[in-house]
Amino acid sequence: DFAAMEKITIGIVGGDGIGPIIMEQAERLLRVSLAEEISAGRIVLKQIEGLTIENRTALGKAVPDDVLAAIKECDVLLKGPTTTPKGGTLESANVTLRRELDLYANVRPVQVPEEGIDWIFYRENTEGEYVLGSRGVEIPGKLSMDFKVTTEAGTRRIAKAAFDYAAANGKDNVAIVTKANIMKKTDGNFTRICHEVAADYPGIKADDWYIDIMTANLVNKDIRSSFQVFVLPNLYGDIITDEAAEIQGGVGTAGSANMGDQYAMFEAIHGSAPRMMEDGLGDYANPSSIFKAAEMMIRHIGFTAKADKLAAVLEECCEKEKKVVVTGFADGATCKAFADYVIGKL
Amino acid sequence: DFAAMEKITIGIVGGDGIGPIIMEQAERLLRVSLAEEISAGRIVLKQIEGLTIENRTALGKAVPDDVLAAIKECDVLLKGPTTTPKGGTLESANVTLRRELDLYANVRPVQVPEEGIDWIFYRENTEGEYVLGSRGVEIPGKLSMDFKVTTEAGTRRIAKAAFDYAAANGKDNVAIVTKANIMKKTDGNFTRICHEVAADYPGIKADDWYIDIMTANLVNKDIRSSFQVFVLPNLYGDIITDEAAEIQGGVGTAGSANMGDQYAMFEAIHGSAPRMMEDGLGDYANPSSIFKAAEMMIRHIGFTAKADKLAAVLEECCEKEKKVVVTGFADGATCKAFADYVIGKL
Ligand SMILES: CC(C)[C@H](C(=O)O)[C@@H](O)C(=O)O
Ligand SMILES: CC(C)[C@H](C(=O)O)[C@@H](O)C(=O)O
Repeated sequence: DFAAMEKITIGIVGGDGIGPIIMEQAERLLRVSLAEEISAGRIVLKQIEGLTIENRTALGKAVPDDVLAAIKECDVLLKGPTTTPKGGTLESANVTLRRELDLYANVRPVQVPEEGIDWIFYRENTEGEYVLGSRGVEIPGKLSMDFKVTTEAGTRRIAKAAFDYAAANGKDNVAIVTKANIMKKTDGNFTRICHEVAADYPGIKADDWYIDIMTANLVNKDIRSSFQVFVLPNLYGDIITDEAAEIQGGVGTAGSANMGDQYAMFEAIHGSAPRMMEDGLGDYANPSSIFKAAEMMIRHIGFTAKADKLAAVLEECCEKEKKVVVTGFADGATCKAFADYVIGKL
Repeated sequence: DFAAMEKITIGIVGGDGIGPIIMEQAERLLRVSLAEEISAGRIVLKQIEGLTIENRTALGKAVPDDVLAAIKECDVLLKGPTTTPKGGTLESANVTLRRELDLYANVRPVQVPEEGIDWIFYRENTEGEYVLGSRGVEIPGKLSMDFKVTTEAGTRRIAKAAFDYAAANGKDNVAIVTKANIMKKTDGNFTRICHEVAADYPGIKADDWYIDIMTANLVNKDIRSSFQVFVLPNLYGDIITDEAAEIQGGVGTAGSANMGDQYAMFEAIHGSAPRMMEDGLGDYANPSSIFKAAEMMIRHIGFTAKADKLAAVLEECCEKEKKVVVTGFADGATCKAFADYVIGKL
C-alpha cells in the first residue's frame, strides 16, 4: 500500500540502444510531474547503472548481482529496453528481471478512441517459452529442442488478474488466446484453468480463441472493437501486443506494466532498436511508449490526479494535436524535442 | 514431373465444419476448369471420405489408416479444413498429414496490389511446436511441458526453398523471422542455418527479425510493402499468415500450398469455423481461400494457362468487381452463389 509509505523509491534503469536516450527524457518528465513529492522527499528517483549489454556480456550474467540488489531496494522501476544477444546462453535481462521479481502479469492497454478500441492484454509474464529459453538442448548439426513450461498456479494467478480487471472495470468478456489445438498440455491446461477461474465471475463471458485467428481479428475492422480483455500465455502475449500497439499508432506508443505481488516494473513495449542506432537515428527515437509507462507507474503508486493529468497531456500530444511528431526518422521530431513539447504542457 | 504423367490423380478431402460446404464448390470449380482433361482421363478427381472429426475421434487416429492409404495413392490433394479437439491426445489431422506426406514447405502468398504488397511466406511445416504437440508431459495440478523440436536438415530445406523462390522470382530480400532472443537453441539455429543457406545466394539480402515486431511491421503501411519473402519456423508462420491474409481481405481469401518432394496438398488457410456452424451460417462460408488453393494446385500440376485464367477470374471476382461478396454473414452472398458467379466467368 503506497499511500501508507513515507518514502517511495523509483528505480530508473537506462538499458541499451535507444534505452538511455528515451530514459533521459522519461526521467525529466518524472522530475516535472512529481516535482513536489520529490522535493518533499516523499519520492526518490534512484539511477541504477550497469544493466548494459557490455556489462552483462562481460560478467556472463543476465542481471549482474549488484544491479539486482539495487533494483530490489526500489519499490517500483521504470526501465529502458535492453538488448539480448542472439544465440549463446546469456538470458534476456527483461526475462530475468520478470522472474527474479516475480512480475507475473504483463499488462498492456491499447486504445484507438475514434474506433472504439479499448483493449487490455493480460500476458503471463514468467512462464511458457521464456522459462527455459536459454536452456534448450541440441545435438550439434542434427537437432535442437526448446521447452515450454506452464504451471497450474502461474496460470491461475494471471487468469485471476485478468478476470479481476474485467470485473472491476465493467467488462463482460475475456478472450482466452492460446494454440491449444497444438500445444495440448501447456495451452490445453491454460485454457482449462482460465475457465475454472472464469466460473467465479458469473457476469463475464470467457471465449476461447486461437492465436493465429486472433492476430487476424485485430486487423478486422468489423469485429476488433468488440474485444475487451485478453488473457494469454507469455509468447502469444508478446507477439499480439506488438501488433496491437502498431494498430494504436506504433510500438513506440504503448506502455507496459510488469506486475507482481511485491514489485512492479514499467517499460516501453518496444525493444532497444539496434537498427535505428546503426542508422544513426537514435536521437529520433519515440519516447511515447516509455512516457505511457511512466504514466502507468505514477498511477500505480497512487498519484491518480498526476497520472490523469499526464495521460491527458499525452493524449493531446500523441493523438489529438500531433504538432510535434516523432517519426523515427530524421524527418520527424527528435526524442528531446517531443519531450520538451510534452513537458511544456504539464 | 507432371508433364510426363499419363494420369494425374487429385484427391478431394472434405474436412469438418464448413469444409464440406466449401469443398463441394471447389470440386465444381475444378470440374469446370479442368473439364477437358477430366473427360480425356488425364486428370482423375478422387473423393476421399472418412477424414471427419467423428470418424477420427471414434478410431482414436488423427488420420485413419485407410484414409492415409487412399491419400497416398493420389498425386496431389485439395483439402478442406479439419477440426482438432482441444486437449486430449488426438493430434491435428493437418499436422499428421503434413508429417506423413513430408510436406515441409507451407507456402502462402498474400497480395494487396493497390498497396504494392506482394508477400510470400515460406513456413516450415513439419517441425517446431507441432512435432511433439500432442506428446507433452504434465504433473497433474502442478506443471505442464511441451516441446519444440527443429532439425538441421529440416531447417536447411525450408531455407533453401525460400531462397530458391527469391532467386527464381527476382526478389532481393528474405526476412528470417524467429524469436531467437528467447528460444536460443531452436530459433538460434534456425537463424544460423538460414544465413548459411543465404550465403549461396549472393544477390539476396537476408535480414533477421523477431516475430513480435514483424507482426507490427505488417500493420505499418509505411514499411510493409518493402517485405517480399519470409522464412519462418512453423508456429510463427501459422500466426503471421493469418494476420497477412486478413490484411489481404480476410483469412477466407488466402490459399496455402503444403509442398514436399513427393506429395503436395493444397488447402484454405482458415479453419473449419465451428463458430459459424453453431451460428447456422455455414452456407455463407467464403470459398475464396479454397478457390485460391485450387488455382495454386492447377498451377503446380503444370496447367499454367488454366491457372492464369482462374487467377484472373478470382482477382476480378474478389478484388475488382466485388459484385457478389461473401461476408460470412447472412447479409452477404452464400458460398454457392459466389461459386456460381465465379464459374459463370470461367
Ligand atoms: C525484449 C524481449 C525479451 C521482450 C519479450 O519478448 O518479452 C519484449 O519483446 C517485450 O515484449 O517485452
Ligand atoms: C488447423 C491448424 C492445426 C493449422 C495450423 O496450426 O497449422 C491451421 O491453423 C493452419 O494454419 O493451417
